[in-house]
Amino acid sequence: MREHDGGATMAPGRVGDVRRRNLALVLGSIGPESLATRADIAASTGLTKASVSSLVSELLETGLVAEVGLTRAGERGRPGVGLALDAQRGALGAEVNVDYLAVGVVDLHGALRFHEVAEAVNRGREPEAVVAELSRLVGRCVSAAADAGVTLLGGGLAVPGLVDPSRGVVLSAPNLGWRDADLSAALAELVPEAPFGVVLSNEADSAALAELWYGHGAALGSYLYVSGEVGVGGGLVMGSELFAGPGGHAGEVGHVVVEPTGSQCSCGGRGCLETVAGQEAILAAAGITNGGSTTAARMAALQAALEAGDAQAISAVERAGHYLGIAVVSAARLIDLSAVVLGGHFAALATWIRPALLASLRSFAPGAVASDAVAFSELGTTAALRGAAGAAVRRALAAPYALLG
Amino acid sequence: MREHDGGATMAPGRVGDVRRRNLALVLGSIGPESLATRADIAASTGLTKASVSSLVSELLETGLVAEVGLTRAGERGRPGVGLALDAQRGALGAEVNVDYLAVGVVDLHGALRFHEVAEAVNRGREPEAVVAELSRLVGRCVSAAADAGVTLLGGGLAVPGLVDPSRGVVLSAPNLGWRDADLSAALAELVPEAPFGVVLSNEADSAALAELWYGHGAALGSYLYVSGEVGVGGGLVMGSELFAGPGGHAGEVGHVVVEPTGSQCSCGGRGCLETVAGQEAILAAAGITNGGSTTAARMAALQAALEAGDAQAISAVERAGHYLGIAVVSAARLIDLSAVVLGGHFAALATWIRPALLASLRSFAPGAVASDAVAFSELGTTAALRGAAGAAVRRALAAPYALLG
Repeated sequence: MREHDGGATMAPGRVGDVRRRNLALVLGSIGPESLATRADIAASTGLTKASVSSLVSELLETGLVAEVGLTRAGERGRPGVGLALDAQRGALGAEVNVDYLAVGVVDLHGALRFHEVAEAVNRGREPEAVVAELSRLVGRCVSAAADAGVTLLGGGLAVPGLVDPSRGVVLSAPNLGWRDADLSAALAELVPEAPFGVVLSNEADSAALAELWYGHGAALGSYLYVSGEVGVGGGLVMGSELFAGPGGHAGEVGHVVVEPTGSQCSCGGRGCLETVAGQEAILAAAGITNGGSTTAARMAALQAALEAGDAQAISAVERAGHYLGIAVVSAARLIDLSAVVLGGHFAALATWIRPALLASLRSFAPGAVASDAVAFSELGTTAALRGAAGAAVRRALAAPYALLG
Repeated sequence: MREHDGGATMAPGRVGDVRRRNLALVLGSIGPESLATRADIAASTGLTKASVSSLVSELLETGLVAEVGLTRAGERGRPGVGLALDAQRGALGAEVNVDYLAVGVVDLHGALRFHEVAEAVNRGREPEAVVAELSRLVGRCVSAAADAGVTLLGGGLAVPGLVDPSRGVVLSAPNLGWRDADLSAALAELVPEAPFGVVLSNEADSAALAELWYGHGAALGSYLYVSGEVGVGGGLVMGSELFAGPGGHAGEVGHVVVEPTGSQCSCGGRGCLETVAGQEAILAAAGITNGGSTTAARMAALQAALEAGDAQAISAVERAGHYLGIAVVSAARLIDLSAVVLGGHFAALATWIRPALLASLRSFAPGAVASDAVAFSELGTTAALRGAAGAAVRRALAAPYALLG
């Protein structure tokens, strides 16, 4: 999913182009906890010490950077003052999914500072009602951040569907029943004082990026992320960047056809991975019927049945793993990816999914995806909100000049 | 498939970096038959007329460009001398496939000047024997080019398998039975006097590029090319460039799993598109058994049976179209491509494949791939050789300085 730069980054300011570049350059050489000195920065950027000193002054003014004490006092020469990204700056991440809402704050060091996940029944609900409930959760999170002295720079909202981030519109989210839902006004009001605004994203794309920044992804570099929720989504990361494809919506692994004689899918097609490996599909195969309870409650019942060794439950999950393997193989062949990260219920059910998935990969494409290139997310229901917040953090770090007068 | 620049482009010469760039810039503004004047080139490149004049002199010296007479005599001012790419320069293209060898010469105007396609039975044959036979065909083609005064700048050899072009090695070509076949020495001897050498490529990637340069591809911009031969290959073109993927071998649509209960594939997996839509699979389903004749002869028998309305033959081809649709849908979902170009036997059998393919696309992903975004190649068995030659032409046009003393 493409994300635009956020309106604020385009604002004219007192800073010229070269200085803008140099501000971002210097900021980029200051890690979360690197405690770089001005001298270190001059050496790593090739800028003069005088320039670095002046640029650092401006970065201190933006609040993105803080002086954090002396460093390497044991070395020769005068110890410098250490600089690091300020952990009291952060961004809001939020997710609307079919059966839950999630919000949280990620700081510039990558830590999840506050978060809240609330069960919800959002299928078929009007976007306005869902956003109103989300706003209450966001309000609590923003208050908690303010109480702790954390300033929010911007935010991101992830939804399980195709989005146009530049317009703030959900083009299509079949599992919510949304089509052309314009959230632009709601996004503007979510964190009104945040200079970098709130940007819409696809849930699986955001979760894929969360893996890259805060999970298994950095070690893999290029991988397919598969998001297991009521729907099955996906995101492609190649060379440590999200791959959007020519139309901007690549990675829809949930709608790869894995069972040509399969059943109708929410997308209008049939035999898609989602129809055999989405939460409702697994619950149905496991014989865990609705009975008025939420999907989350039934997923907990599934987990209990699995732990009790229930044959039907185990067979349902193994079947999902089998078909998941087919979709991963097809992605590996088409895109030449050799690693996969599994999130959502695929991660929660890893104990039972993993053997069936590995057997499927061996059977359908021996050697294409090695067993040690199959990773399970540890981010749980916070994956998408972390990715959405992380993208907002990156927008801010790429445009520090937007925070100057 | 990545292609290296060809050793010759790296050679030190008398030309500095800026001049190298400007030579390529000026050359790029001279189309195949544009009859650009030096004044046109100065206007379009922003270089001074004196610079253009000097650069054009050097380009004339390379032989890539020729003066082709006066242009636009009716306009105001002194008519300029027209410049165009010299159609007497070209590159060799060659293809080794399972049941044929093909060679040809493509000139700088994109015309296929000479070509020869010879039936062969290459499955399980040693690379040395195949290359020896190919060399005889190439020899005839090179002689024909020399007789016609066409100078060859370089060449390309396409094979149905995964290749490492930088080393000239076929990593794996299951339908030929080749593994780690080092063709570097053979490539060097194929057109020994060609300054840009001969580069190895994947057959489907080359055919995909041939569509871009000489077929339907330019109008589509981004598309999946599917190559129907004994094996089924594929190439991905995005934004008018070949997409190689993180590992360099993207586009293997022949090994997308379309039938989870399907049979063993040459790749070691099972249920791959190739097992239901490759030539041997269609012939078997149509009941056209070997009987000692070549695949090409049996494909001709299939064509005759289809034209006679043979129900088993029609059903076999429709089945292939059905599964082809499934693989195209999976590619469209994963990569967000909305167009496809079909080559090889898929093009030859278009009359019968097309309705089944369109029905499959409608059924498995309504709206994802429109019927007018399904194109059938018109390049036949010359597609891959044209692409391989075209890539060599582009290597030469990108590095004209390599032709200067």
